[in-house]
Amino acid sequence: MRTLKITLAYDGSDFHGWQVQPERPTVQGTLAAAIERVTGCQVLPQGSGRTDAGVHALAQVASCQIDAGIPTENLARALNHVLPPAIRVLSVEAAAPEFHARRSARAKTYRYRIYRGEICSPFLGRYVCHHPFPLNESAMGEAADVIIGEHDFTSFAAVDPERGREEQEASNVRTIYSSEWRREGDESTFTVRGSGFLHHMVRNLVGTLLLVGKGTLDGDGLKRILEARDRSAAGPTAPACGLYLVSVEY
Amino acid sequence: MRTLKITLAYDGSDFHGWQVQPERPTVQGTLAAAIERVTGCQVLPQGSGRTDAGVHALAQVASCQIDAGIPTENLARALNHVLPPAIRVLSVEAAAPEFHARRSARAKTYRYRIYRGEICSPFLGRYVCHHPFPLNESAMGEAADVIIGEHDFTSFAAVDPERGREEQEASNVRTIYSSEWRREGDESTFTVRGSGFLHHMVRNLVGTLLLVGKGTLDGDGLKRILEARDRSAAGPTAPACGLYLVSVEY
Repeated sequence: MRTLKITLAYDGSDFHGWQVQPERPTVQGTLAAAIERVTGCQVLPQGSGRTDAGVHALAQVASCQIDAGIPTENLARALNHVLPPAIRVLSVEAAAPEFHARRSARAKTYRYRIYRGEICSPFLGRYVCHHPFPLNESAMGEAADVIIGEHDFTSFAAVDPERGREEQEASNVRTIYSSEWRREGDESTFTVRGSGFLHHMVRNLVGTLLLVGKGTLDGDGLKRILEARDRSAAGPTAPACGLYLVSVEY
Repeated sequence: MRTLKITLAYDGSDFHGWQVQPERPTVQGTLAAAIERVTGCQVLPQGSGRTDAGVHALAQVASCQIDAGIPTENLARALNHVLPPAIRVLSVEAAAPEFHARRSARAKTYRYRIYRGEICSPFLGRYVCHHPFPLNESAMGEAADVIIGEHDFTSFAAVDPERGREEQEASNVRTIYSSEWRREGDESTFTVRGSGFLHHMVRNLVGTLLLVGKGTLDGDGLKRILEARDRSAAGPTAPACGLYLVSVEY
């Protein structure tokens, strides 16, 4: 029995998110089918977290245990041979027996891409959120600092009927190590690194930071939303297509 | 009545090509529906040429005549408002009454993108042809010169039952003004500019030039294929997803 650490990138546009669902294409289900085809092992690879429908990954990490003869160094190529082009395995490594992609994760980085130009190229449309309206970038930058540190992020967490009670009642305290906006050409990108993220947390943060950019909220308002610990206090959920899981640290 | 020159970009991945077809999404049909929704005019915009299913355009040109009150300068924004993100109108200009996107065209440029790295990013998979095997680039470059000038390109034209007899029997002589390969990072791109192109001509040229890159054909072989005026003499048709209509000159 070998424990594998699989690092993969995917274009989430045509998947119903990471988590396996009956009758619908998901990244987890597609990866499981590829692993079975290549190794003969029926396993459900565990991701570092569940990305929503339409959310992309530059380097998601999944773990599983397999009992098969194929050498680890041949697995990435073999999996890519049977996976659709929208999912690419970047590497497969042998991991310690106790390695678990979600439980072992120490930090994650997400990025959100906003295209600011008037006409969004058809080759970008699946990969950014198009926002061709003025945004106060310095106000957004200052507001992004507000979330750095350890906070209860209940105000930015989705109320999610699909999650188990245990998960719902677990602590919503997370630590954000960095949170910043950058302008690159016609794009504004928000990059956030933290100990972990609640469901919809990055998209809710971005939706709320956009209110700051539009001038309908300021940094103090964001602070009050954070302190309210109430989802209804925060701004709307930004569209999935602009969001990327960039990396997972162990 | 105004004659319009519409310049548009599209991601061809999810369309069954340019030309309108019943019950299937096509670029021409989608654009016609958008024009009707915005102007109330039922017109079939004429493209500079028919791109195949999966082929992309950076600047396709279409023409049509409309009898509607909306100012020309408002049309691009109005059309983009109702078009799917995979089609973007870049500009709409008033043209001379006799302007016709296909008949008035004087030259066209196509580009073909080949990704050479071992793992093709999921965000590139729809937009390049993946070829992770060695290619002799200098031989491909020399062979690309062979087609420059005026030639009968019958060997590189699709035998196409859908085209009318008149079109089938029309001259297959075209003039190529430039034809070259470039290496940019992990991509090899082929850019060709000519007076016009036959159906599948660029993809058949690329498929044949790839045989040169693999060493199974040389420049003299390509010359013989061109002189044979026989489609069965040439190499395979390269996949649609790597091809872009770059621009049309009038």
